[in-house]
Amino acid sequence: MAITLEPIGFVEVGMEPKEKAKGVESKYEYVSTIYIYEDYVDGLDGLEDYSHIYIIYFMDRVGESILKVRPWGKEENPIVGIFATRFPPRPNPIAISVVELLRIEGPRIFVRGLDAWTGSPVLDIKPYDYYDIVKKPRVPSWFLDKWVDHMVSKRYSEIVPWLGPID
Amino acid sequence: MAITLEPIGFVEVGMEPKEKAKGVESKYEYVSTIYIYEDYVDGLDGLEDYSHIYIIYFMDRVGESILKVRPWGKEENPIVGIFATRFPPRPNPIAISVVELLRIEGPRIFVRGLDAWTGSPVLDIKPYDYYDIVKKPRVPSWFLDKWVDHMVSKRYSEIVPWLGPID
Repeated sequence: MAITLEPIGFVEVGMEPKEKAKGVESKYEYVSTIYIYEDYVDGLDGLEDYSHIYIIYFMDRVGESILKVRPWGKEENPIVGIFATRFPPRPNPIAISVVELLRIEGPRIFVRGLDAWTGSPVLDIKPYDYYDIVKKPRVPSWFLDKWVDHMVSKRYSEIVPWLGPID
Repeated sequence: MAITLEPIGFVEVGMEPKEKAKGVESKYEYVSTIYIYEDYVDGLDGLEDYSHIYIIYFMDRVGESILKVRPWGKEENPIVGIFATRFPPRPNPIAISVVELLRIEGPRIFVRGLDAWTGSPVLDIKPYDYYDIVKKPRVPSWFLDKWVDHMVSKRYSEIVPWLGPID
């Protein structure tokens, strides 16, 4: 049974390969804009009352799906199933990103924290609310190692103080 | 440009109309099971290292989409855009639910907190990690009112102490 979806918009300004060359170290250091098609713009009313939202988009440039992956290709990490990771080459390459909502101007949504390539089709926008917060989830050690490293190297506590588990 | 997806499984035991009749007061009071099709089961390896996961499913019994909604039909709530709510009748009725992962037995995932009807097609499973935590997001007052009411009436602090913003 196939399910057919129609994009409600697209990532107008997103992640670009050049960002890396410019010294951008994380997805929290640049602003992305999402363009919502005219037919759906009225559906955004009231979204600005939330500080954070989910962007649900389609990773349209991903290759064939795989079932196993070694996270970040690092030898010390175990090979795990694709559903135990957020890596793109999944059976249905849908991405969900929690982003900071900066502002809305007509059909454009300005956000911080989106790691979607420019041009990616957007499928849905949802508010981030209290039912989405797990205070301190358990995660595997390979994830934790990376997080601790990024907290320092990417200065998360400074740039995105709203992010992450409760100490 | 249409996007076509194929379910990776379905909600084998989910929310049922009768649950309400039985005195179930919230989605955290019953256990749901998800059945993953054989071709994808290997993709679950390592998922059990997470305490919480996202279930991305298709709300296949939703009616025609609407752009404006009055949350819970309550007169005192403002009419807002569908994207400012989590209500089902959206242009693309994809749902994302943060659930507690109880256990995995072969092709079956047992979870707490899923509000999907039995039979709903499942599109993706993702781990919930630290990038999904916003410590204390801003939400509209109509949401907050409901939350405060539910915290007490549905005994969230007792049943799901891991849920919600940091005090």
